Amino acid sequence: MSGLDAALELVRGQRDAHLEQYKEFLRLPSISTLPQHKADVERTAAWVADELRRAGMTTVEIVPTACHPVVYAEWLGAPGKPTVLVYGHYDVQPADPLGEWVSPPFDPQVRGENIYARGASDMKGQIFAQIKAVEALMKQGPLPVNIKYMIEGEEEIGSPNLGAFIDAHRGQLTCDAVLNCDAGIHRPDVPGIIYSLRGLAYFELEVHGPKTDLHSGLFGGSIHNPAQVLCELIAGMHDEHGRVTLPGFYKNVRPLTPEERRDLARLPHSDQEWKEVAGVPALWGEHGYTTLERVGARPTLEVNGIISGFTGVGSKTVLPAKAMAKISMRLVADQDGAEVYDQLSQYLTQRAPASVTWELRELTHGKGAIMDRTTPAMKAAVAALKEVFGVDPVFKREGGSVPVVSLLQEKLGVDSVMLGFAMPDDGIHGPNEKQHLPSFYRGIETYIRFLSGLAM
Amino acid sequence: MSGLDAALELVRGQRDAHLEQYKEFLRLPSISTLPQHKADVERTAAWVADELRRAGMTTVEIVPTACHPVVYAEWLGAPGKPTVLVYGHYDVQPADPLGEWVSPPFDPQVRGENIYARGASDMKGQIFAQIKAVEALMKQGPLPVNIKYMIEGEEEIGSPNLGAFIDAHRGQLTCDAVLNCDAGIHRPDVPGIIYSLRGLAYFELEVHGPKTDLHSGLFGGSIHNPAQVLCELIAGMHDEHGRVTLPGFYKNVRPLTPEERRDLARLPHSDQEWKEVAGVPALWGEHGYTTLERVGARPTLEVNGIISGFTGVGSKTVLPAKAMAKISMRLVADQDGAEVYDQLSQYLTQRAPASVTWELRELTHGKGAIMDRTTPAMKAAVAALKEVFGVDPVFKREGGSVPVVSLLQEKLGVDSVMLGFAMPDDGIHGPNEKQHLPSFYRGIETYIRFLSGLAM
Repeated sequence: MSGLDAALELVRGQRDAHLEQYKEFLRLPSISTLPQHKADVERTAAWVADELRRAGMTTVEIVPTACHPVVYAEWLGAPGKPTVLVYGHYDVQPADPLGEWVSPPFDPQVRGENIYARGASDMKGQIFAQIKAVEALMKQGPLPVNIKYMIEGEEEIGSPNLGAFIDAHRGQLTCDAVLNCDAGIHRPDVPGIIYSLRGLAYFELEVHGPKTDLHSGLFGGSIHNPAQVLCELIAGMHDEHGRVTLPGFYKNVRPLTPEERRDLARLPHSDQEWKEVAGVPALWGEHGYTTLERVGARPTLEVNGIISGFTGVGSKTVLPAKAMAKISMRLVADQDGAEVYDQLSQYLTQRAPASVTWELRELTHGKGAIMDRTTPAMKAAVAALKEVFGVDPVFKREGGSVPVVSLLQEKLGVDSVMLGFAMPDDGIHGPNEKQHLPSFYRGIETYIRFLSGLAM
Repeated sequence: MSGLDAALELVRGQRDAHLEQYKEFLRLPSISTLPQHKADVERTAAWVADELRRAGMTTVEIVPTACHPVVYAEWLGAPGKPTVLVYGHYDVQPADPLGEWVSPPFDPQVRGENIYARGASDMKGQIFAQIKAVEALMKQGPLPVNIKYMIEGEEEIGSPNLGAFIDAHRGQLTCDAVLNCDAGIHRPDVPGIIYSLRGLAYFELEVHGPKTDLHSGLFGGSIHNPAQVLCELIAGMHDEHGRVTLPGFYKNVRPLTPEERRDLARLPHSDQEWKEVAGVPALWGEHGYTTLERVGARPTLEVNGIISGFTGVGSKTVLPAKAMAKISMRLVADQDGAEVYDQLSQYLTQRAPASVTWELRELTHGKGAIMDRTTPAMKAAVAALKEVFGVDPVFKREGGSVPVVSLLQEKLGVDSVMLGFAMPDDGIHGPNEKQHLPSFYRGIETYIRFLSGLAM
């Protein structure tokens, strides 16, 4: 029996044990954006480091950064063979709105074919499956390739310290290919490979009206309500064709080629299903593009949050002093975050009335990326998916943002292969996040085949 | 020495004692809209009842309603003389945003000529001053008029049970005039009498998009963001001339007469000062009307609060499931709350896109009112103000809403005299609410003179 077959057999026999360990990982509330979870984030880094040691890594380090640590590990016992750098993150999004979870976000529960917990899909399930694949292979003998791990704890806050980490460890991170596990497939029966990601620029906009909350009866009619002004500003950011109106917003957007449009049109997709997954009465978006084009290949502007005035139970007749919105853009090649900051500033300068003042803060930005579909690693991923799922994978453009992909392209000159087993309806970032367990188990097998295939 | 003069002398000698009792009243956090303060509201009702007993009322009752009790009291020892029904409320607005208070909202502190606390101006200071006036008069002998009190605990939540209370106690409440102390003057040196009040209709509008919060990368571009839709709907509620666009909104608005416009123009008012009090870079409002006209005689639509999605620290890339706004209108004669509900519904039906659903809830509504300026009570109020302040009072139209005025007009057929000593810059409903103490002491004297004058 080959090492590959033995490893596959091994993981098939260990599904229950893997599920228990996976649950242990999910119980750690590693919410990177909330300061009160700092110790949990650190415990999670230590947990991942232990797993990597158990898998057989010869070097495992927890490297501090200005905020949350990076877990670095390596095993370099295959001289002459390719070196793969595995990227992942062990941090998760906040769990609110808490009241909408069927089971508590950090008490993982299996219902049907899914496991429910914050981070189950994004992305503890993916990175854990990859480590289990390596562990199984190493139990059969030396790994067929050299392997390095860079697992960060700040992805959900925009990876503020990852660039500096890569700069400081550039030599150590040298590799032939990056395996980025922060990815998903299209449907349980349709494996896919993402070759394009959107960038993200995230802002906070605050509109200031009166110096303090006022009585809406005494002052209403004489003061421009900052909540109303914020609404007016936001309303003006899209035109009636669903296009973003910031000056120059589409100037650097790389148009879809006819070939790409054909490829995207061939993807299994139903607007009806998409509508049902989202639970909306009708879809919406930029005119002239299909849903998958709008989500994968067109930039967007989204209100992520908005707050002003009195929002408790009952009626408080206040004219609020200020109003705040969180606004983010998903960017496509070749837009960049600095440019959209300027566009948004310019829009606000042109549109904001003299009756208020405003303040725009950038919280984070990262570029989009398009990957070469013809590298050996990409081919190994295609072959592995085909073996495990029994069908050819589809090529996808992804709407989400994985800034590390463009960061590694830029700093190490290496393309990433996006290989992960999340599903579009996993509810990541929302309540009741889940991971489809059969896809998780197939994921372990795919990672085993990918690493074996890459060695050949 | 007459009873009047003796009473005036008495209250002048008791200012320190009155201030201490006033502080005690202000320490009671009688926030009617917050269920967790229910016991505090009840304690406050009991405190007011005790004060009325101490002042000399022969009947004092705490009458339960479906929510917070009404304090009723009477002294009817002056047969043949007029009967005055004193209206007030002992409840207060919530104190948020708490962080903006210089001193805690329920720990009253005197700084300069003002006392700072939630409710100091709206309206514990006013009703307390009135009770102290009666107490002083009763210490000199029988009151010159019959007096009844109706002090409710639900004014700040729209007086939901006051109508039923009045209906149930119609006989008991019979009177010749209503003295409504929930009022203010224009400036410390300019006494004023309000003869017109705006009505209030308060709504909650919820826009529903996806069934759960979604990842803004995976779904952004395909789903109409409910926060964006809510902003679009709100933005469309005013046109570029600051006019409300709800269909038919101005249809029943009683136009200002040339005489009223002249009267309002004669009021001491400076847009520059108004701007400074509010702390805004520029005033705003419906074109074609002066500030005092817009605030006092024109209807308005205000966003009192808005919330959606993630509003904590940091960046959460969520496409929110829903967005909510609190929206209220100040109404003028002859608009009514039911009619604006229909107008708002109609607007939403016309404008809301098919990509979302929405829900409109009415929280409260009350009509505006215009009072006869020539009644004996109105004349007694004018004379009392002139005696105490040394100048003729001005007649004002008030932007705030005192629904009880139209309620009493409708149910008892009696006009109210609005006599109180709040100031436009008191910061009622906002942080750092204050009451000007010299005006509070003048208020006690004015109430003494008003009651004495009414008897003649």
